[in-house]
Amino acid sequence: MRTIDWVDGAVELVDQTRLPDECVMVRITTVDRLIDAIRRLAVRGAPALGVAGALGVVLAGGDRDAIARLRAARPTAVNLAWGVDQAAAWLPKGREAVLETALRIRDEDIAACLAMGERGADLLTEGRPGGGLRIMTVCNAGGLAAVERGTALGVAQTLLERGRLAEVLALETRPLLQGARLTAWELARMGAPHRLVADGAGPYLLARGGVDAVLVGADRIAANGDTANKIGTYALALGAARAGVPFVVVAPETTIDFATPTGDGIEIEDRGAEEIVTVRGMRLAPEGTDAVNPAFDVTPHDLITAIVTDKRVIRP
Amino acid sequence: MRTIDWVDGAVELVDQTRLPDECVMVRITTVDRLIDAIRRLAVRGAPALGVAGALGVVLAGGDRDAIARLRAARPTAVNLAWGVDQAAAWLPKGREAVLETALRIRDEDIAACLAMGERGADLLTEGRPGGGLRIMTVCNAGGLAAVERGTALGVAQTLLERGRLAEVLALETRPLLQGARLTAWELARMGAPHRLVADGAGPYLLARGGVDAVLVGADRIAANGDTANKIGTYALALGAARAGVPFVVVAPETTIDFATPTGDGIEIEDRGAEEIVTVRGMRLAPEGTDAVNPAFDVTPHDLITAIVTDKRVIRP
Repeated sequence: MRTIDWVDGAVELVDQTRLPDECVMVRITTVDRLIDAIRRLAVRGAPALGVAGALGVVLAGGDRDAIARLRAARPTAVNLAWGVDQAAAWLPKGREAVLETALRIRDEDIAACLAMGERGADLLTEGRPGGGLRIMTVCNAGGLAAVERGTALGVAQTLLERGRLAEVLALETRPLLQGARLTAWELARMGAPHRLVADGAGPYLLARGGVDAVLVGADRIAANGDTANKIGTYALALGAARAGVPFVVVAPETTIDFATPTGDGIEIEDRGAEEIVTVRGMRLAPEGTDAVNPAFDVTPHDLITAIVTDKRVIRP
Repeated sequence: MRTIDWVDGAVELVDQTRLPDECVMVRITTVDRLIDAIRRLAVRGAPALGVAGALGVVLAGGDRDAIARLRAARPTAVNLAWGVDQAAAWLPKGREAVLETALRIRDEDIAACLAMGERGADLLTEGRPGGGLRIMTVCNAGGLAAVERGTALGVAQTLLERGRLAEVLALETRPLLQGARLTAWELARMGAPHRLVADGAGPYLLARGGVDAVLVGADRIAANGDTANKIGTYALALGAARAGVPFVVVAPETTIDFATPTGDGIEIEDRGAEEIVTVRGMRLAPEGTDAVNPAFDVTPHDLITAIVTDKRVIRP
């Protein structure tokens, strides 16, 4: 199954807001509907947003205003703007050239995730002749965040295929519960042993021992290695550092933003109080309660053991 | 309003599972109903559990088996067993003596929380002539966790009364959302400015700056200062240490367990998968998803700036 693809002249994508209850493909033929799908997180995850951005330019035709709005639909993930720019550069050559570029980005994502899976699994099993590894992750850096296979979860999948995965401990990832809804769903389909964990418990379980590595995705990596990813990632990195557990970022090269020197320059989207005071439409807090809701955090490079890309292993 | 009290020959307590939707007092006349209320967290919080334990011995009469079951109803909080033991020691003198002891424990909790509020507020404002403080907290260490005023939230209340509270940032505290349901409710009643925060965002907001202190309660403090408290506390302590923000535990002396040398000796209750895969009865994760659910974690003493009790300030 592909999370996002180009089918018969339209973008088709899995509506991730409806998982795990139902797996529905939606067909999108206009940029405005695509922007809406991005904003309400029907499609999310940095690599998938790169493909969405590129395919969106095909839908936009030559509408420069629509392209600009698409590019800004989510500010933190660098891949969305990157995908838009890659495809838009071919606009002078006509629609077919734009479409070809978008499909190339799609195919490159599939290949990149396979390469990251192999490289990450090599890194984690290096010097360990046998036995299964216990992995902790946050949010969803799986196939649902990319096209076919995932980034961080792609490494877990390769470990599973090699018979080297003991278990994935997945943080539920409030407020939108991508871990509980999406990662648990993917791991079950994959046949990978897994258990959910409340976000607050991640660092403590690392301290208790028994976790071999923390694997996370990335929405934007600054030139110095500081990494923006789903809120909660930084807390896990602190826990991993204190426990001496390797903390590994898995992301395609396109996630590295050389124009941003450090994490201080990364804009962090605040998604408003509603996501915090409710869960899937049900109210949790008293009426009128306000909230702070940064969707991402920045992990300083000194807390990162390695960044695994489709091309190399970087040790910040 | 008292969270728990002895009224006309019975224990009366606020059913905290129904907050913030409705504030219902339940009347309890048997030990078994009290044990049930403790297990389903209708009454929770270390100081309140101490009073519940003592009053439960009154309900038990001389039934030693019922007293033993009450004492073990929740393993992590030391105050429950302590309250039971204090009251049970008077059983040979008769019911009136037991009741007197239980009511003394209730009154001492009220006085202790007032004393902690004053001492904690003094500590935080020392050397700061003016301006409001921004406090971060987890779970509910408020009046709902004690009898009238709280421990950590009691300090916030004293700051508010002194005109020195800018805002409380309250972690929602999955899985049972005591922060979203109880702390937000208490702070609103108190008239204290506050915003909710997802648990994963706590350490990152500390790194971003603007928080003056983290204040937490405690369920059990080992002799060396290692502190068991609600899951998520350890992650906040890591974030506070990295950000240079004071991390202060506020708890009555009775929470210190001198019989337990270090945090390694504290039993951590796992409350099972159901609380994680659902929220307030609504399913979040795919059917059949398993979870790890430690209800508490242990913060090592080196991450604790100060422990404020009703009698002193300890710097571990």
